[in-house]
Amino acid sequence: MAQIIESIPNISEGRRPEVVEACVDEIRSTPGCTLLDYSSDESHNRSVITYIGDAKAVEEASVKLVKKAAELIDLNHHEGEHPRMGAVDVMPFLPIKDCTTEDCIELSKVVGKRIADEAGVPVFLYEESATRPERQNLVKIRKGQFEGMAEKVQEPDWEPDFGGRRIHPTAGVTAVGARPPLVAFNLDLDTDDVQIAKNIAKIIREKDGGFKCVKSMGFEIEDEETGRKYAQVSCNMTNFEQTPLYRVVETVKFEAARYGVHVTKTEIIGLCPMKAMVDCAQYYMQTNDFDFEKQILENHII
Amino acid sequence: MAQIIESIPNISEGRRPEVVEACVDEIRSTPGCTLLDYSSDESHNRSVITYIGDAKAVEEASVKLVKKAAELIDLNHHEGEHPRMGAVDVMPFLPIKDCTTEDCIELSKVVGKRIADEAGVPVFLYEESATRPERQNLVKIRKGQFEGMAEKVQEPDWEPDFGGRRIHPTAGVTAVGARPPLVAFNLDLDTDDVQIAKNIAKIIREKDGGFKCVKSMGFEIEDEETGRKYAQVSCNMTNFEQTPLYRVVETVKFEAARYGVHVTKTEIIGLCPMKAMVDCAQYYMQTNDFDFEKQILENHII
Repeated sequence: MAQIIESIPNISEGRRPEVVEACVDEIRSTPGCTLLDYSSDESHNRSVITYIGDAKAVEEASVKLVKKAAELIDLNHHEGEHPRMGAVDVMPFLPIKDCTTEDCIELSKVVGKRIADEAGVPVFLYEESATRPERQNLVKIRKGQFEGMAEKVQEPDWEPDFGGRRIHPTAGVTAVGARPPLVAFNLDLDTDDVQIAKNIAKIIREKDGGFKCVKSMGFEIEDEETGRKYAQVSCNMTNFEQTPLYRVVETVKFEAARYGVHVTKTEIIGLCPMKAMVDCAQYYMQTNDFDFEKQILENHII
Repeated sequence: MAQIIESIPNISEGRRPEVVEACVDEIRSTPGCTLLDYSSDESHNRSVITYIGDAKAVEEASVKLVKKAAELIDLNHHEGEHPRMGAVDVMPFLPIKDCTTEDCIELSKVVGKRIADEAGVPVFLYEESATRPERQNLVKIRKGQFEGMAEKVQEPDWEPDFGGRRIHPTAGVTAVGARPPLVAFNLDLDTDDVQIAKNIAKIIREKDGGFKCVKSMGFEIEDEETGRKYAQVSCNMTNFEQTPLYRVVETVKFEAARYGVHVTKTEIIGLCPMKAMVDCAQYYMQTNDFDFEKQILENHII
């Protein structure tokens, strides 16, 4: 497989396994598409599906998924803790290998148009695909949720990018867009003073003047086994090529040192592209001339 | 592709491109086998071919390669700087993914027997596949080279493992065996005192009481562009799971510190399995619970 694009759609169903399975089957049955993972959250009444393939395979699987979800999920009868506006609520496309963000933006437009035409579900382009600044942020698009969407799309600024101003009566609207791969990354400290984690989180996150593409918060964590409490800096690395993980590790270390505090361990949640790890190995080992594409054996197979 | 075995045979031809191409074509034409690289050395009159696949594909490609090389290469007319005993001189099998050293040992026996039966080339099993301790070392097997081999195989201790005591009249004998993937790894120092590199090399290598599966030497290197001379610790990491690269980096750093000397950069030569790099990232970033197989996205595709 030369090109790899990853899609991680969220569907508004997390309680009826047969509906989730029927949706996931649309991915499984698409040639060239590989299902990596799926999981449901009952309290959110929402499921996350992860699959990869080249642009054509991901396009097919994504359109089929929206059609099936629109057939089986009725948001008029949907309850859950997580805000939502569509049967498929959000569908991001991430460039993993041999493709650019631009390729994923192009794919999001192709898929967006097909979803509107073939499933009758209007589409907002979001994140990197957004056609207006206020549409980059999914939270702003989703504000008002399914119940308020029929009215919202009548507003001058909120006509969907595809499908016109009439939402699907049961499946609502869907946000489709390109975004870089995200790595969820936590650093545990040898202190139970959560304020230290909060201070460090504020230093490293983009919002408060820290590193670009880093979102972070400080939490108090209780170890389930021992009951011991400790502080944690929890990060979402939204573009690990812009700000690599090692830069956050080293910054958290030297900022923690001010308090005599150390990083006890770090944790990557879920899937992680190998480049995020290899970039860190290259920094620490000073392999400055290493050619990731050519020298990693596996890159010749994928 | 689930299972990956890598083979890196050396053939005794580096001057006639048409012969090298004909041999490489045997790899190219084997379904399920991927040619990664090949290169020829004129002064050695020798070529290295690298390919991967599952056991069945590597078996087929390897047997075809020996047949073709035996047909086209006549060691009675071979001259070159590198010692050699066969048209295919040596054929190692390396476990890369979803297979063990034992799988590669098994493969080496299957391929060894087929080479003897189908190409008429007697085979010595070497390295991990060796049937006697003195056959682990290729240099000991090859001693006497092609010219002395007809006589050597008559000695009580030197009957080949497959094919009996009569060498192939033009293609000699071949060594086949399993070995772990090797990473060639150099560390440059900010000194021109080669003795410091030699001292450190001696500390880290297995032979002199250092780390298992590390071979190392100290060299003086002259930068081709600037003419500046510096000392280098050059390592062959013959099993990066036994002794990971970061352990060598950190040891070279603290041993160099005794002389006020630092590592300026390191270099990995050629191909490197991603796990060698990810293991280092895990150490430096303290991601101690990271699950390589499950959490590296690419492991779900390969």
